[in-house]
Amino acid sequence: MTNSSHISQHAKWGKQTTIALKHFRVGTETFPAELLHAYGMVKYCAAAVNQQQDLISSDIASAIMTAAQALIKGELDQHFPLSVWQSGSGTQTNMNVNEVLANIANHNLASSNSVHANDHCNRSQSTNDSFPTALHIACTLLITRELLPALERLAQRFSEKADTWHSLLKSGRTHLQDATPITLGQEFSAFAFQIKQATTSIKQQLTVISELTIGGTAVGTGVNTVSGFSEAFCQQLNDLTGLQFQPTQNHFASQASHDAVVQLSGSLNTLATALNKIASDIRLLASGPRCGLAELHLPANEPGSSIMPGKVNPSQCEMLNMVCAQVMGNHTTITVAGAQGQLQLNTFKPVMAYNILQSLRLLTDAIVSFDTFCVQGIQANTPQLAAMMDKSLMLVTVLTPLIGYDKAAEIVKIAAQNNTTLREEVLNAGLLTQNEFDQLIRPEQMVSPKTPE
Amino acid sequence: MTNSSHISQHAKWGKQTTIALKHFRVGTETFPAELLHAYGMVKYCAAAVNQQQDLISSDIASAIMTAAQALIKGELDQHFPLSVWQSGSGTQTNMNVNEVLANIANHNLASSNSVHANDHCNRSQSTNDSFPTALHIACTLLITRELLPALERLAQRFSEKADTWHSLLKSGRTHLQDATPITLGQEFSAFAFQIKQATTSIKQQLTVISELTIGGTAVGTGVNTVSGFSEAFCQQLNDLTGLQFQPTQNHFASQASHDAVVQLSGSLNTLATALNKIASDIRLLASGPRCGLAELHLPANEPGSSIMPGKVNPSQCEMLNMVCAQVMGNHTTITVAGAQGQLQLNTFKPVMAYNILQSLRLLTDAIVSFDTFCVQGIQANTPQLAAMMDKSLMLVTVLTPLIGYDKAAEIVKIAAQNNTTLREEVLNAGLLTQNEFDQLIRPEQMVSPKTPE
Amino acid sequence: MTNSSHISQHAKWGKQTTIALKHFRVGTETFPAELLHAYGMVKYCAAAVNQQQDLISSDIASAIMTAAQALIKGELDQHFPLSVWQSGSGTQTNMNVNEVLANIANHNLASSNSVHANDHCNRSQSTNDSFPTALHIACTLLITRELLPALERLAQRFSEKADTWHSLLKSGRTHLQDATPITLGQEFSAFAFQIKQATTSIKQQLTVISELTIGGTAVGTGVNTVSGFSEAFCQQLNDLTGLQFQPTQNHFASQASHDAVVQLSGSLNTLATALNKIASDIRLLASGPRCGLAELHLPANEPGSSIMPGKVNPSQCEMLNMVCAQVMGNHTTITVAGAQGQLQLNTFKPVMAYNILQSLRLLTDAIVSFDTFCVQGIQANTPQLAAMMDKSLMLVTVLTPLIGYDKAAEIVKIAAQNNTTLREEVLNAGLLTQNEFDQLIRPEQMVSPKTPE
Amino acid sequence: MTNSSHISQHAKWGKQTTIALKHFRVGTETFPAELLHAYGMVKYCAAAVNQQQDLISSDIASAIMTAAQALIKGELDQHFPLSVWQSGSGTQTNMNVNEVLANIANHNLASSNSVHANDHCNRSQSTNDSFPTALHIACTLLITRELLPALERLAQRFSEKADTWHSLLKSGRTHLQDATPITLGQEFSAFAFQIKQATTSIKQQLTVISELTIGGTAVGTGVNTVSGFSEAFCQQLNDLTGLQFQPTQNHFASQASHDAVVQLSGSLNTLATALNKIASDIRLLASGPRCGLAELHLPANEPGSSIMPGKVNPSQCEMLNMVCAQVMGNHTTITVAGAQGQLQLNTFKPVMAYNILQSLRLLTDAIVSFDTFCVQGIQANTPQLAAMMDKSLMLVTVLTPLIGYDKAAEIVKIAAQNNTTLREEVLNAGLLTQNEFDQLIRPEQMVSPKTPE
Repeated sequence: MTNSSHISQHAKWGKQTTIALKHFRVGTETFPAELLHAYGMVKYCAAAVNQQQDLISSDIASAIMTAAQALIKGELDQHFPLSVWQSGSGTQTNMNVNEVLANIANHNLASSNSVHANDHCNRSQSTNDSFPTALHIACTLLITRELLPALERLAQRFSEKADTWHSLLKSGRTHLQDATPITLGQEFSAFAFQIKQATTSIKQQLTVISELTIGGTAVGTGVNTVSGFSEAFCQQLNDLTGLQFQPTQNHFASQASHDAVVQLSGSLNTLATALNKIASDIRLLASGPRCGLAELHLPANEPGSSIMPGKVNPSQCEMLNMVCAQVMGNHTTITVAGAQGQLQLNTFKPVMAYNILQSLRLLTDAIVSFDTFCVQGIQANTPQLAAMMDKSLMLVTVLTPLIGYDKAAEIVKIAAQNNTTLREEVLNAGLLTQNEFDQLIRPEQMVSPKTPE
Repeated sequence: MTNSSHISQHAKWGKQTTIALKHFRVGTETFPAELLHAYGMVKYCAAAVNQQQDLISSDIASAIMTAAQALIKGELDQHFPLSVWQSGSGTQTNMNVNEVLANIANHNLASSNSVHANDHCNRSQSTNDSFPTALHIACTLLITRELLPALERLAQRFSEKADTWHSLLKSGRTHLQDATPITLGQEFSAFAFQIKQATTSIKQQLTVISELTIGGTAVGTGVNTVSGFSEAFCQQLNDLTGLQFQPTQNHFASQASHDAVVQLSGSLNTLATALNKIASDIRLLASGPRCGLAELHLPANEPGSSIMPGKVNPSQCEMLNMVCAQVMGNHTTITVAGAQGQLQLNTFKPVMAYNILQSLRLLTDAIVSFDTFCVQGIQANTPQLAAMMDKSLMLVTVLTPLIGYDKAAEIVKIAAQNNTTLREEVLNAGLLTQNEFDQLIRPEQMVSPKTPE
Repeated sequence: MTNSSHISQHAKWGKQTTIALKHFRVGTETFPAELLHAYGMVKYCAAAVNQQQDLISSDIASAIMTAAQALIKGELDQHFPLSVWQSGSGTQTNMNVNEVLANIANHNLASSNSVHANDHCNRSQSTNDSFPTALHIACTLLITRELLPALERLAQRFSEKADTWHSLLKSGRTHLQDATPITLGQEFSAFAFQIKQATTSIKQQLTVISELTIGGTAVGTGVNTVSGFSEAFCQQLNDLTGLQFQPTQNHFASQASHDAVVQLSGSLNTLATALNKIASDIRLLASGPRCGLAELHLPANEPGSSIMPGKVNPSQCEMLNMVCAQVMGNHTTITVAGAQGQLQLNTFKPVMAYNILQSLRLLTDAIVSFDTFCVQGIQANTPQLAAMMDKSLMLVTVLTPLIGYDKAAEIVKIAAQNNTTLREEVLNAGLLTQNEFDQLIRPEQMVSPKTPE
Repeated sequence: MTNSSHISQHAKWGKQTTIALKHFRVGTETFPAELLHAYGMVKYCAAAVNQQQDLISSDIASAIMTAAQALIKGELDQHFPLSVWQSGSGTQTNMNVNEVLANIANHNLASSNSVHANDHCNRSQSTNDSFPTALHIACTLLITRELLPALERLAQRFSEKADTWHSLLKSGRTHLQDATPITLGQEFSAFAFQIKQATTSIKQQLTVISELTIGGTAVGTGVNTVSGFSEAFCQQLNDLTGLQFQPTQNHFASQASHDAVVQLSGSLNTLATALNKIASDIRLLASGPRCGLAELHLPANEPGSSIMPGKVNPSQCEMLNMVCAQVMGNHTTITVAGAQGQLQLNTFKPVMAYNILQSLRLLTDAIVSFDTFCVQGIQANTPQLAAMMDKSLMLVTVLTPLIGYDKAAEIVKIAAQNNTTLREEVLNAGLLTQNEFDQLIRPEQMVSPKTPE
């Protein structure tokens, strides 16, 4: 149910919003503020260009632009009570914006009621082009101002850990089974690399997501606009934001489909798989304290259990894992929605907007929180790392070029059965002398290729 | 970001909630009220049984139960500011509940501060069993009190339409191509049937979702409970709700995995595919008014376009289509989350709760809205239905038992090329006399099997 | 590409199949034999009823039925070269069946060429009703004859393990962190329960999947059938299979949508989440041998690594995990396909058939393999289980009813810092005497609720 | 079940493959030939570099390389009987390759049995680095040699159609409701653009998918390789293929995670949403022939119905729609698999390989088929396009800047009620003269922005 309690006497919306409140009492979800603020930018820039093109008078344009600035700044958020679950074009929310801005503009103008929601605030626009424009703006701003900086900080943090633990030897694990040694630094360098690679992919999407449908109006033809509208709009917007927006290369495609959003969501989905792996690994490496791998210590932020005293849980990892699951599901929603556009319009715009903005917001916040309250404070449990590696039988791998795969496998089998060390069994079998063994089996030389002789 | 502005001086939560507000500033999503109210029931029933088992004194039990009643009634919703994105067990929200109830209980008691959040409110419980118990209760109540009645009304509405249009002939369509006739009533009977079938499947899940983890405490063993706790708890709860809850048959499985939630989500996913098909069909049948199929008229609830005057859009269908996409994506989230439990605990509880409750709420509200503002008001465009059927060449099908598939196919090909009717070409080809044709080609006899002679 | 090399001189198919081979050269996927054999049953039963209803002569009916029996037995599999990726109704495969049976029937009849693929083999049918009928038959047979027995054996195996290890104490783990004790038997009882619950859910789907579209023909009306066809067909089929098929309750819904398949896939998806958790747990419990939890020993079926000698990997678990991922993805495919039916036909039949049958086959085979080559041979590493539990600090939980949550938490913190045992720190703090400690901290009493005093 | 019937006396595989055939009797899926051929390239290049680095003798290297060339050419496909469902690293298939090559190499060498599957064919490699290397090679070749050319031809075809129908006016449709005019060329330009945009995105993935894990061996450290191995390997491979492969920038990340595959799958998922929309649109525009939109004629490739004679179905569109559903599901599988890597290894390699290669193959073949048998032959139904547009009331939109939104909406409402034309009602209302109307309402001027005056 939409919250009818929100409807105050001072509500600035008009008739169409009121009708929509009646017809779309579905769920509790409203659009995130980021979309509303971006819609403010759309109306601001459109009014400016409409004035330039002599389509609306300068006092009306100014009044709309002033009202739009308040919306951009977040001062009008309470006037947008509509549910996400409305018409598939987002018409009701566009009209909500138009009505609120018209009402405020009229209030500010000497001659009241001269600003019309459709004829002025929506001039040279349709919901079909303005809604996706607002969405692309909101995504672009979230990515450039919040997500990318958060990703860069996290990659940097992992890189620092990788440097710190550059030579800290430990047992590698493949199939969760003991494998040849690595360093803890190498392990964390993988995390840093995954984040960097995901960052590159998200940056690539910025080019496409910065292309705007504005100027296409109802069906992509630009009916009821004057040539040059979309270019002038982007110029206004770039002045306002300092970014590089431009008109879409094909208005028909960009209103009828939202491949750019599906593709961006695909990159967030890849980021989620990367983060899910990283968070799960850190949880696993920190398992214990007594009955797990216990190679890492995580910060103890809060009591872990309501029943087991003294328990510390990897709650930041779990929070991040859950966000990853949400982003993957949002990606399914966006894919299903993106696949079902018909003819000149995709009518799943609100659900796509809701999901992509949720994914961007959750990833951003979760990364900041995970970095701040977990990664930053991770400590290596050095004695445990050393103890584990010493016990591992997989150091045998380095002997295979000498004694062959089959003989090496036999030695491991015997050591496992006898619960002995590799050294004991190799000497026992007379395969190497003690000196030879110590020369050959040097974990610190097993963490990189051999220098050619 | 969680809304720090919510934190009033009068907040009833305590230390652990405050710590959690600091560590989990992620997203804007908080738990739906349904979960909080169900958690109130958990604490109410647990206190009652703890008193019965002489584990807490009767004045403390009473004080907790009084506070819990306020929570159940929705009077304390503002005291639950925590983000969904927290520890994977929901520990912070359980402690939020414990703290709020303890504070209120202490306030009501003569001897203040004698009620402890852990030692009394959480007595005989762990987050690991109380959180999924609250979730199962919330799901069960939403299904029985809201979703099932909404589904039954919608099925009933479709059945009524099917009855009304029982004999109203029209062209069938397969592959979107003209096919043999059906009646509009038959078409709507399919919708009724799909809803009934989905209803049956959801009812089947009620048995499993009514089984509760309560009594398992930390790991499923019931450590720190006294025998009989879970049975007595369910008795209390059944008295409170009038429903049939019972303890899970295996506490270990039900805390470590949430297969019941995954399966329930699977049934909602099936409902979503059914509703998506229905909403899309109605949109398609109502396409037009001049350039589409135009077989149905939908109620004109609101202006359809901000730029094209007089446009009426199938906005209720689109709203429902979007909800279906959301439910499908939520199902992916729940599947991914449900698959990653580890050992004695699935730590994706909050994200599973958030998604299943959102799916239940959205489906319920969307079905009510779709029924009220769309299905109820659908009108058949009778002249268009008749005109379409008369033009169709697929009436030829009834001739195949007489003249064979190959000859019938030839006739259709010629009529299509010549833009003539089937009748013209059949007579032309001398295959039948005019009388024979009129005897044989009777659409009203093509909508059911032939009575055996 | 379909394999044109398969086309031998002796191919029994006809003109329409040949045309289809040209137009649908897509991928390497052909329908699984299970679907073809089930299609044989459809043609067998239809011919029998057509004869009963005097629609085709008894010698033609007999000839078709004889040919169909060969198809049912798997003797004609090589005559079905068509790709899954064809018309969305499966028309080409239905015609392939019709053509092969007509050719063989004609060959067996004295008067050759009297059996027509459409007019006789397809009599009283359309692809639109015969294809989903074949699919439902194939699913029902696979489930009842293969999947359910495999599930029952696996549940039985887990139950036996649970019995064997009924009292074998170990550390529980929640959030991957040490928790209060459980027994290994309790842990395995959860696996048994999950499998049993999934089995129940799949059995519930049998009712719906046993309902058949046959008799609906082109659009669900049953045009070109005689009353009683579908009932007589089911009677024939039940005689043939010994099962309980019946006509769908609504032919229009069942050809236009495949909610029954979506719902069945939902149950398989739940099974996949359960199996994924189980396989992952067993992998984790068997991690090591020296640097992991090492609580279980898995059978060493094959060399684990091509480079690390002596390595044993949990390959059966991994195989099962991969099958689970496939089943989850197939479920998305089926959901997307199921949601996009239009008017009188869902035209995603082949892709739904391919995916649901793959899911059923993979789950069945994977469960059998996992049971045979992994679960059956699992051994408990008893010394390791005991050593782990003894070290755990979470035994403290049992003290909280005595000393309170806060004091207990303090003790754990100190023991963790000092790397000491719980016993040492409790005695140190003078909270209990040695005797009292030994009385109270008894892990074997922590694996069930306390008997009321 | 894997097909044991495949095992001929002349099978070239060895002991480990035979063991694997026993332990992994799951499903019918084997790896596509593309992966096997790429694995041939891996072994060819590795042998060449091993010889350069003096790690194996030149006659052994030559013998392996000769055998590998046969594998690359597809001459050994029958010797790879293993199921996809095996160890999560693909160890069995790597050993199958090693064994087949060793057997053939030994056969060709004077001194038989001197080539060892592990010690020579697998030298300087592990399954953990060679399997993903083979996968990345197979993907790169499929994309560059098949998918991209197919996409470019399809985009070109749509562009040609767009040019041909550049000025062919028709009614636009939004929400499936009549909207302002567009041209058929504009509609098809959107399809061309979507394909081009998807092509760009796939090309971007080539950079990442061309990075190879080779040289990382067991855990990413490159243990048992000599410095320079991976660089020299890529040089060999680039000489062999003419492409630009290079070593991964982080071996640890690239063996433990397959973000590159997840991201590539994300791009294929976007392509699938685009193609799904395009195929659905063409189906809808071709709906009819008498009871649908009927704006397009599609080629009649084959009889559409087994029961309705003369029916032509949009079977190429449906085939493509089904492939899209499969690719979306495969993407879920790949996401679920990609998210569950652990520590130094992702053990979902075979299922990821199977799905990404299936997606690439299906999309390629489906696009070629769709282009050849559908798009190429599409004809415009010119009279129908004109008739539809003339009837539309949405031409009113162009009047709103003159008479305002509210008055325009009123006119449309009246025309709809009276079943009259826009012209009639505008003149009726005295809003415009006949001359003015004809001046203003010119559909050909509604398909682009107005030139500024």
